[in-house]
Amino acid sequence: MNQPLAVGIDIGGTNSVFGIVDRRGNILYQGSIKTKDHQDISLYLDALHEGLAPLLDKAMGNGDEIKGIGIGAPNGNYYHGSIEFAPNLPWKGVIPLANLIRDQFGLPVVVTNDANAAAIGEMTFGAAKGMRDFIMVTLGTGLGSGIVINGQLVYGHDGFAGELGHVVMEQEGRLCGCGRYGCLETYVSATGIVRTMLELLREKKTDSVLRKLKPAEITSKIVCDAALAGDQLALEAVDYTARVLGSALANFIAFSSPEAIVLFGGLARAGDLLLEPTRKYMHASVLQIWRDKVKLINSELKESDAAILGASALVWEMKE
Amino acid sequence: MNQPLAVGIDIGGTNSVFGIVDRRGNILYQGSIKTKDHQDISLYLDALHEGLAPLLDKAMGNGDEIKGIGIGAPNGNYYHGSIEFAPNLPWKGVIPLANLIRDQFGLPVVVTNDANAAAIGEMTFGAAKGMRDFIMVTLGTGLGSGIVINGQLVYGHDGFAGELGHVVMEQEGRLCGCGRYGCLETYVSATGIVRTMLELLREKKTDSVLRKLKPAEITSKIVCDAALAGDQLALEAVDYTARVLGSALANFIAFSSPEAIVLFGGLARAGDLLLEPTRKYMHASVLQIWRDKVKLINSELKESDAAILGASALVWEMKE
Repeated sequence: MNQPLAVGIDIGGTNSVFGIVDRRGNILYQGSIKTKDHQDISLYLDALHEGLAPLLDKAMGNGDEIKGIGIGAPNGNYYHGSIEFAPNLPWKGVIPLANLIRDQFGLPVVVTNDANAAAIGEMTFGAAKGMRDFIMVTLGTGLGSGIVINGQLVYGHDGFAGELGHVVMEQEGRLCGCGRYGCLETYVSATGIVRTMLELLREKKTDSVLRKLKPAEITSKIVCDAALAGDQLALEAVDYTARVLGSALANFIAFSSPEAIVLFGGLARAGDLLLEPTRKYMHASVLQIWRDKVKLINSELKESDAAILGASALVWEMKE
Repeated sequence: MNQPLAVGIDIGGTNSVFGIVDRRGNILYQGSIKTKDHQDISLYLDALHEGLAPLLDKAMGNGDEIKGIGIGAPNGNYYHGSIEFAPNLPWKGVIPLANLIRDQFGLPVVVTNDANAAAIGEMTFGAAKGMRDFIMVTLGTGLGSGIVINGQLVYGHDGFAGELGHVVMEQEGRLCGCGRYGCLETYVSATGIVRTMLELLREKKTDSVLRKLKPAEITSKIVCDAALAGDQLALEAVDYTARVLGSALANFIAFSSPEAIVLFGGLARAGDLLLEPTRKYMHASVLQIWRDKVKLINSELKESDAAILGASALVWEMKE
């Protein structure tokens, strides 16, 4: 068919998913391997090659041309083409991933962090299509972000820009995995909402279906489901999360004045549950000139596809 | 001499200063008029023409070519070429300044806010020369900012990006002129440090030379001078200001990961007095990956020249 295609690889702590994608965002071939089964990077690369090479052969057998490989990974650095000190991946230190994969497949390779890849995916195929200024906020175990300004992803002087999960919301707030206190992601993330729920269960007398569970059994999904079913205390946890997120977003707007903020990932999946109150708090907190002006929307990409689409879209952004 | 020149106009609440500048940042001719003497914009434009036209005639009489006029003004909007609802200027509502001045002088005109103009000036002629990612923070009556990413000024989707003085530092903090509470500029600005000083004088028993003054007589300059002379309470006011600013800058770094942050204006003039402790607090607060990596520096432009230089430098940035 002689069309240009791009490979997208999303490296997560548990699984690595990959696919071959056309310019319109159709995933033509896809596969996956276990990330955590390969403690040694060279064994991981062998497994990746074994999974991906047959897909490349199929695509090229059709006469299609593979333009390159885009990779989204935690702590991925765009400038260095590396993964650097990623706490949730099996490989320690600095992994020169772009070089390793370029040598293996003989294709141009571009690396960025997972949230940046999601932002590029959203801009190319999703809710931010055609936008030149927006902020992507990914709500998973932590809070990630990808910032687009003037149609370009913001990498900063060192490739690490957009760590909005580590904006400090409260000087003596909750202890964060980064060693500091009060970071946004300690409140707004899957783990953050569970911490809030546990605090509410301890501090309040209000009845709740969650009182039947042991603290260790409570997940963000359980909190959201309980809130959707009308549980008063779970609704309070959602409201608190929305208030902190809304205030943070109001500050981000003062920085880059985006056209929209796009929410993506686990916590955002519960539809309007988090979106509605967050929007209310955001517009109540934001400087007058932006009130009811900056959009807050959910991602339009299926979560299972988004990682591959975002990573693949990096290839179309590549400077030749 | 047949060189290209640019006009820079800085419109302040009290004075408007203007100059004709060469590409290396030499101000060849300059003048000023009173802004606040002209409540009517058309009378202001007449006065501006009267002041500026003779300078243009001189420059062109030398065979030099005027490429355009750059204007920095409070609430200046780059996209609209307008001044919009500026509380400290005599003209109300939206003033289509670029069109008015273009019609008057027959030259291309570009408008932006004063802090953005300062950032462009610093990038073209000052401490941020050659940098592609930095943040300019101007400490005057309020706190203004100009953000440069990938070598471009960040205007956002509507031209109003970079309102870092209105990032909320404390949810129920000090009342701000914008009607909200806890904005950065209520703590970090000439008026902010005076508010801090007055609070300390009320709340503490510590002796201070400032106790001899009436509250209304205390200015930021008096606080800084007292601190430089070793006054304990004034030093506390400076330290508190530095702590709030340092925490705020740490958050800004998480957003755009700049190579440097440049301080400019009144409060920054006291040399290392504010810079040193702010740097200490910034590096103590920032995420590990940026510790002792992002520079905090003072502007290298003379304050009297910076406004004209910055505004004129906008002309060289203009797309033809």
